[in-house]
Amino acid sequence: MHIQKIELIPIRYKVEPNVGLSSLANVIAKYAKAGDIAVVSSKVVSYCEGGLVKLADIKPSNRALRLSKQYKIPPELAELIVREADDILGGIERFILTLKFGMLCPNAGIDTSNVPEGYAILYPENPQKSADTLRNLVERRIDGRVGVVISDSRILPLRRGVCGIAIATSGFEAIKDERGKPDLFGKPLRNTMRNLADMLASASQLLMGEANEMIPIVIVRGLNVRFTEEKFRLTVDPKKCLYWGSLNGKVCWSDKSKP
Amino acid sequence: MHIQKIELIPIRYKVEPNVGLSSLANVIAKYAKAGDIAVVSSKVVSYCEGGLVKLADIKPSNRALRLSKQYKIPPELAELIVREADDILGGIERFILTLKFGMLCPNAGIDTSNVPEGYAILYPENPQKSADTLRNLVERRIDGRVGVVISDSRILPLRRGVCGIAIATSGFEAIKDERGKPDLFGKPLRNTMRNLADMLASASQLLMGEANEMIPIVIVRGLNVRFTEEKFRLTVDPKKCLYWGSLNGKVCWSDKSKP
Repeated sequence: MHIQKIELIPIRYKVEPNVGLSSLANVIAKYAKAGDIAVVSSKVVSYCEGGLVKLADIKPSNRALRLSKQYKIPPELAELIVREADDILGGIERFILTLKFGMLCPNAGIDTSNVPEGYAILYPENPQKSADTLRNLVERRIDGRVGVVISDSRILPLRRGVCGIAIATSGFEAIKDERGKPDLFGKPLRNTMRNLADMLASASQLLMGEANEMIPIVIVRGLNVRFTEEKFRLTVDPKKCLYWGSLNGKVCWSDKSKP
Repeated sequence: MHIQKIELIPIRYKVEPNVGLSSLANVIAKYAKAGDIAVVSSKVVSYCEGGLVKLADIKPSNRALRLSKQYKIPPELAELIVREADDILGGIERFILTLKFGMLCPNAGIDTSNVPEGYAILYPENPQKSADTLRNLVERRIDGRVGVVISDSRILPLRRGVCGIAIATSGFEAIKDERGKPDLFGKPLRNTMRNLADMLASASQLLMGEANEMIPIVIVRGLNVRFTEEKFRLTVDPKKCLYWGSLNGKVCWSDKSKP
């Protein structure tokens, strides 16, 4: 097996709302080569797709007003969270813990940073579709295969600070199955799956930052992935999860929350 | 702000048990330059330090025998988990969920892959001390500043497959505080901390793999970090955690589990 170095190449891009994914694909295609993975922030994808929402246009429901009071969140934002979340699990001051696309997700992925005052940005409506569309657009432009990761930053349980997480991927083996592979001593592996998508999201997040860096795209070059049309699920059913399985009976899931 | 590309450089190394951190530092120093971050797998650090344990030498206690039966884990491994864990939270078949060094951690970080048959490898006894020692040894050899991350792979709640996590860091600003930094529209940031350590661990895990790749070291070059002697805590108190705070009352922590 040949192991080579990987390059993470940051792309500067100042997005305008509602320009469409084609515009984003043009920027990626200027820098990407066949075999690359383009990691793109979910915020920029959503910006392009028209996911920017004016908070003053949102009319909070009674449920949103209750949540707003309980967790000290503006009522309009609480209403968006109610609409966007697949399930609401609880919260602390300023944050509501939700399930969204089968992921544990603060505020249903809605963010008010790096958007104009008085606005919020939602997650892409269908991240898998966005990832596929973006990849097809880029592949057509560069005439070669690329992978796409739509990424976000995320706090993880008991960890300090955010790291990267993948919302959707397209075009490559995002979950690498190592079943049957021998370890150094020839014993078969037990941790058989590697989540390349989350690792790519975290690697790229080193360059993207959280502030006004204007780096919403990172090209990953040199990673030896398998390109494929296959789709990869990045989440597991709570019942099959070590964490939630271990805490069984202490954490309740509604039917709606099953990914 | 100057943004440059990052390189991830894999280092092949076949570790022998009990050779000491000096031997590991020699390998890193051969490839690292001033300003680099060396990400090193916790398993290799532990190997060097003598963390390999022969399971036949371990006498299981009654508690270990109970856990062994409950979670279908060999009794000797269950005994090591009881000894190594700061707290045992629950489990599923083959895995016990523990707290270790303030982290959520399957089987207290003990692993039986990539170790000889009949052996298990523990986490480094004092990862912070190991990271500091390793860094000092490397810095002396290359006569310049480097950062060190001790990393492991980890399943995350509701995610499929493993990604990287940092156990300890030394020599650089591992948690980047963005408080007061403006976003694109000049508004102050709300997600104010970035866990560079976990992102570096995940980035490096792209090259390290889980099988017989023999890449336990990855050099990260070009990341603009602040080098410092300051120590950084990578974990938060469960009470201040969005996830555990949100699930308050549904998850119980013993006093021993507070990081």
